[in-house]
Amino acid sequence: MPEDMIVIDALQYVNWDRESFLEARDSGIHTIHVTVVYWENIRETLENIGKWHRHFINNADVILQVRNADDVTRAKREGKVGIVFGFQNCSPIEDDVRMVQILHELGVRFMQLTYNNQSPLATGCYESADSGVTRFGKEVIKEMNRVGMVIDMSHSAEKSTLEAMELSERPIAITHANPEFFEPALRNKSNTVLKALGESGGMLGFSLYPFHLKDGSDCKLEDFCAMVRETADLMGIDHIGIGSDLCQKWDYTTLEWMRSGRWTIDPDFGEGSSSKPEWPRQPTWFEGSKDIMNIASGLSDAGFADDEVAKVMGGNWYAFFEKSFGPSLKVVT
Amino acid sequence: MPEDMIVIDALQYVNWDRESFLEARDSGIHTIHVTVVYWENIRETLENIGKWHRHFINNADVILQVRNADDVTRAKREGKVGIVFGFQNCSPIEDDVRMVQILHELGVRFMQLTYNNQSPLATGCYESADSGVTRFGKEVIKEMNRVGMVIDMSHSAEKSTLEAMELSERPIAITHANPEFFEPALRNKSNTVLKALGESGGMLGFSLYPFHLKDGSDCKLEDFCAMVRETADLMGIDHIGIGSDLCQKWDYTTLEWMRSGRWTIDPDFGEGSSSKPEWPRQPTWFEGSKDIMNIASGLSDAGFADDEVAKVMGGNWYAFFEKSFGPSLKVVT
Repeated sequence: MPEDMIVIDALQYVNWDRESFLEARDSGIHTIHVTVVYWENIRETLENIGKWHRHFINNADVILQVRNADDVTRAKREGKVGIVFGFQNCSPIEDDVRMVQILHELGVRFMQLTYNNQSPLATGCYESADSGVTRFGKEVIKEMNRVGMVIDMSHSAEKSTLEAMELSERPIAITHANPEFFEPALRNKSNTVLKALGESGGMLGFSLYPFHLKDGSDCKLEDFCAMVRETADLMGIDHIGIGSDLCQKWDYTTLEWMRSGRWTIDPDFGEGSSSKPEWPRQPTWFEGSKDIMNIASGLSDAGFADDEVAKVMGGNWYAFFEKSFGPSLKVVT
Repeated sequence: MPEDMIVIDALQYVNWDRESFLEARDSGIHTIHVTVVYWENIRETLENIGKWHRHFINNADVILQVRNADDVTRAKREGKVGIVFGFQNCSPIEDDVRMVQILHELGVRFMQLTYNNQSPLATGCYESADSGVTRFGKEVIKEMNRVGMVIDMSHSAEKSTLEAMELSERPIAITHANPEFFEPALRNKSNTVLKALGESGGMLGFSLYPFHLKDGSDCKLEDFCAMVRETADLMGIDHIGIGSDLCQKWDYTTLEWMRSGRWTIDPDFGEGSSSKPEWPRQPTWFEGSKDIMNIASGLSDAGFADDEVAKVMGGNWYAFFEKSFGPSLKVVT
């Protein structure tokens, strides 16, 4: 295990309170990309960001807002947890491309173009047909590129994802998903997508959400780490990290909101089913932030060298943040 | 020319004032389907409906709101113009299927699933790929069927239009467009679509907007009427009417809003072009509501029998309103 590394979890959706912030800090995580919205419109989004402002004030000794990569090192230095804002859907921009800059100024650094369903920008992974990136989608990608907001295709369909990589002048991310070869979930990604993602300088964050894992809640750490190795061989060791998709402290109502939003009257069960609608149980080796270092140990045990472990645990995300969160220089490598 | 007929224009977008209401009344039109929104969200939509409430109060001697077919006969009897509310886009429902009933209660009787671009419900006719009706789209169609709001596919792409007809339990409409064989505009419809529309009990409203006409602003009334005959042969005489797409009294800013909404920073020129961005000139024989009877005369001159003229001028729309604007009886013929 490396002595000193940057640890980043590139997606969590937690019902945050001081206890969770303390748990995250004590775990050794330096920065977390947190989900601010699923289906919220702009007004509701500003409200959620306003709630985060209260968190930053009330927990100033434990957390700080990350707007650029330097803030991650500052968090580490000060023994705090950095918080990066992100959206799992494009609903906050409503129909207005100009919202992209406004939200970037408020600190939003990731936005998914779709969340499972078709959006005005692109197609989600639960639709039966995928028309790719739309006219509005192309405008939004240009604007996200310009200001430095990362295009996240975690919940998008394949053609849309490949097109987003093509269209985007800057590398994109799949912050929380696994390879399809590990578990054939609609949310997991094909080798075609992963290879293209690596080649274009993008990042994949490995998910610890049971529906994305082989054997679900009973997934073994060894199997997970073997999958990481196989993905590293496919994409390159510099393009992978953690995006645990940890969902914590929420009741079933929140899961219903995530799955059904306001778009259906009869509930949609998403990755669950009517007989098993509830939140899945986390694997015993990753029940929350507190267990993040189990992954580092698992990777070491699986034969990853120290520098490789450091890259996967956060070094790669850090490098990606460095080149992604600022305005476009029009020369991006 | 028939002595007594119901005259309905199934789409106009006019910057309404008392003068326009009087012109419409004096023209012999009994009811007009008016566009209330293009890209407006729910809040802005309610504001536009609120403006209509003022119109109804201030012009109670000239116009009345049409909520069902009986209101059309009442308008005719009282020598007034009936006004039916409709949306050219699904933006008013935002992401919420429950808005459909709310808007129906407020009198909205038509809603397009898309306006040129991809929407969360289906694909617009200006997109390069068409994924058909989405998951959310299916929910919205069910709800529109239930309450009695007509699915309008005037600005939608082909596959989406055919799927909407399939999915909808009630006949749908293309309130304002022409056959592709008349003018190969993206907005005009293929014979496949028109045939399916007629067979499913739906309605086509013929457009008088120059971009949808052979020879544009110089289109001849005879050519237009010959096209109506050919379409009647294709779809059946009971499935066609007028939907003039008359746009009047607006400046260029409104055209920009229609075309570019908030989805693009550089302007989109829609059916126009950067060299010819402005509103097109109407054909001399249809410069506004005042000329509606020119079409009736033209149809008579082209050999349409009186009962056929009456059907095209409004009888068919009336019959369609009768079966479409109320709650679903689950037996719809």
